Amino acid sequence: MDYMNFLTPYLAIDSNALMRNIHRMQEFSRRVDVNVRPHVKTHKCPKIAKLQVEAGAIGVTCAKLGEAEVMVRRGIHDILIANQVVDRSKLVRIAELAKVADMKISVDNPTNVQAISEAARYMSSSIGIIIEVDIGMGRCGIRSKEDAVSLVRLIKSLPGLRFAGLLGYEGHIVLVEPRSVRLENCTQANLKLVEVAEHLEKNGYKTGIVSGGGTGTYDMTGQYEGITEIEAGSYVFMDSCYAKLGLPFEQSLFLVSTVVSAPEQGVCVADCGLKTATSEFGYPEPAFLLTTRGGEKPALTQLSEEDIQVKILSEEHAILRISNPELGISVGDKILMIPSHICTTVNLYNEYHVFNSGSFVEKWTIEARGASY
Amino acid sequence: MDYMNFLTPYLAIDSNALMRNIHRMQEFSRRVDVNVRPHVKTHKCPKIAKLQVEAGAIGVTCAKLGEAEVMVRRGIHDILIANQVVDRSKLVRIAELAKVADMKISVDNPTNVQAISEAARYMSSSIGIIIEVDIGMGRCGIRSKEDAVSLVRLIKSLPGLRFAGLLGYEGHIVLVEPRSVRLENCTQANLKLVEVAEHLEKNGYKTGIVSGGGTGTYDMTGQYEGITEIEAGSYVFMDSCYAKLGLPFEQSLFLVSTVVSAPEQGVCVADCGLKTATSEFGYPEPAFLLTTRGGEKPALTQLSEEDIQVKILSEEHAILRISNPELGISVGDKILMIPSHICTTVNLYNEYHVFNSGSFVEKWTIEARGASY
Repeated sequence: MDYMNFLTPYLAIDSNALMRNIHRMQEFSRRVDVNVRPHVKTHKCPKIAKLQVEAGAIGVTCAKLGEAEVMVRRGIHDILIANQVVDRSKLVRIAELAKVADMKISVDNPTNVQAISEAARYMSSSIGIIIEVDIGMGRCGIRSKEDAVSLVRLIKSLPGLRFAGLLGYEGHIVLVEPRSVRLENCTQANLKLVEVAEHLEKNGYKTGIVSGGGTGTYDMTGQYEGITEIEAGSYVFMDSCYAKLGLPFEQSLFLVSTVVSAPEQGVCVADCGLKTATSEFGYPEPAFLLTTRGGEKPALTQLSEEDIQVKILSEEHAILRISNPELGISVGDKILMIPSHICTTVNLYNEYHVFNSGSFVEKWTIEARGASY
Repeated sequence: MDYMNFLTPYLAIDSNALMRNIHRMQEFSRRVDVNVRPHVKTHKCPKIAKLQVEAGAIGVTCAKLGEAEVMVRRGIHDILIANQVVDRSKLVRIAELAKVADMKISVDNPTNVQAISEAARYMSSSIGIIIEVDIGMGRCGIRSKEDAVSLVRLIKSLPGLRFAGLLGYEGHIVLVEPRSVRLENCTQANLKLVEVAEHLEKNGYKTGIVSGGGTGTYDMTGQYEGITEIEAGSYVFMDSCYAKLGLPFEQSLFLVSTVVSAPEQGVCVADCGLKTATSEFGYPEPAFLLTTRGGEKPALTQLSEEDIQVKILSEEHAILRISNPELGISVGDKILMIPSHICTTVNLYNEYHVFNSGSFVEKWTIEARGASY
């Protein structure tokens, strides 16, 4: 088991599970005839973005200019930044990317639209404008159909801009259970987005892209009449929050840690903490044990919540309560954990260690880590 | 105001406040005759570590091998790793550092002591061993005086090792209020640590170092008879949690963000979120506003909780509620925020932007970011 061989804590990708997740999303895309433009904020890795595009994704969704710069540099040329960007120097950088890539950026504000036009004119390029619609999160996004019409008019009146469509995100719904309630809420959210598209059509404006859908709602939003593309991202790796929803995706990423202390009966301490695992959606869940005892060939032992649980994370420590003493956990053992929230966990690392059936294959750089600007 | 000129979100250091914090800690150190070995897990930056050593710190405390490697590479040569390290390949790296630096490492387990001796022998170097004592956190550390004696015997019996002292950390106490209760709890914790030192003396073993103390207890632990050095780290920057304790240190680090959306009355959205600010001790607190309105020369306006509060952080967004409409906050304005927990916030960035009275001076690389192994 090559999992033993690297400096912990590190992120291990199960490459077979990763590829199955990517292909399952694309099979869905073909079956219901909706495009997939995966969000790269989850993995921040051009290598994985390319695997997604090779499998059929039409391009990528980015959260930030910094991510887009990394993706374009690595040859991804159809980019939607699902976020507002307002700084003049950032807009000039986007206009520069637009010379070699199809750049689309979200807006919800007329002053911002004007600034984007100025940057595009300054760099002699053309930027696609996507209007963000608030579909229930109360975050960014226009709040009315009328605002969409006046923004489109402004976009059409200014040089350097193309009106490219609409974007919504039902982030307040993606983890709602049971599925029937999630579907009901999701339908309401999609209705708001598609109503804006229809209102624009009535006013003579065609919306090319109508983008929505997270990993918890990809199939609901993906099949909703009028939605043209899905921006889900977490499905490539999954996490313990999404695991609870019974989606057709597998856990393909694990946090590998070492037991560094076993100070008393029923307690051990692993070398991962808040600097290597997020806690905003809960603590990571121990999934497999790799033990070094007695010179045996190490093998993965599956762990359950009845065996062992993380009780607390401090900066560099996970304190675990061991409920099953038969595990015989001792200093030096490895524990593979499932992060509670994959996106903010990946953001803490510089690289992935990629494994195929437990054998180490190669490292992939998380090139857009830290590119949060 | 040069704060306007950089891609947000970024970390801004007020260099004057930083230097005042460093000097205040060293003045305390001289006054009560205790050494200061600041924890570099807070800033992860050799540049700042050197400022601390130049001001009188005797060396640095590191959480991880990765941090120690960065510090030694940059010329810091007295290092205490306040953590257990068990992997064979990590121990060899520490033994390698020990050829050029005075390396000390914490232990709480005899198997680990043996492994460290093997690594030191293999590399023909000598490693200082510090016994970690649990003084109330229930995390790592030996649980009894007797364990200390048997560990010291083992350390003395093995080649490549020097018994260097004891370490405790009253992390469960550093934020306790009021001060009188904190002092009481801290005294109990220090008593446990110093009792172990006295027990070792009785058995004929001299403890060189007796290390403890966080930023919330540095003066209590620093004046406790028998404690030889303080390992506090956060005092260089401070944060909103430590601000509540009324310590003689100033906020010297701010998270600078841009308002990217003002979608409805009383709400705005800034471009920092869980990937650029931690939430485990609460949300960041808006401290200053820099506005771009009307071509005025931008100036810092102080903000209070009555003016504006962060209501929620998502991955890349801070949704803020504006209670004071007179601020006239609009898209493009900058907000300087105080992180709730400085250590896990710094860990998200690659560099600091350093300012002197609002003028940009230079960038300092957070060289040990990601060195969590």
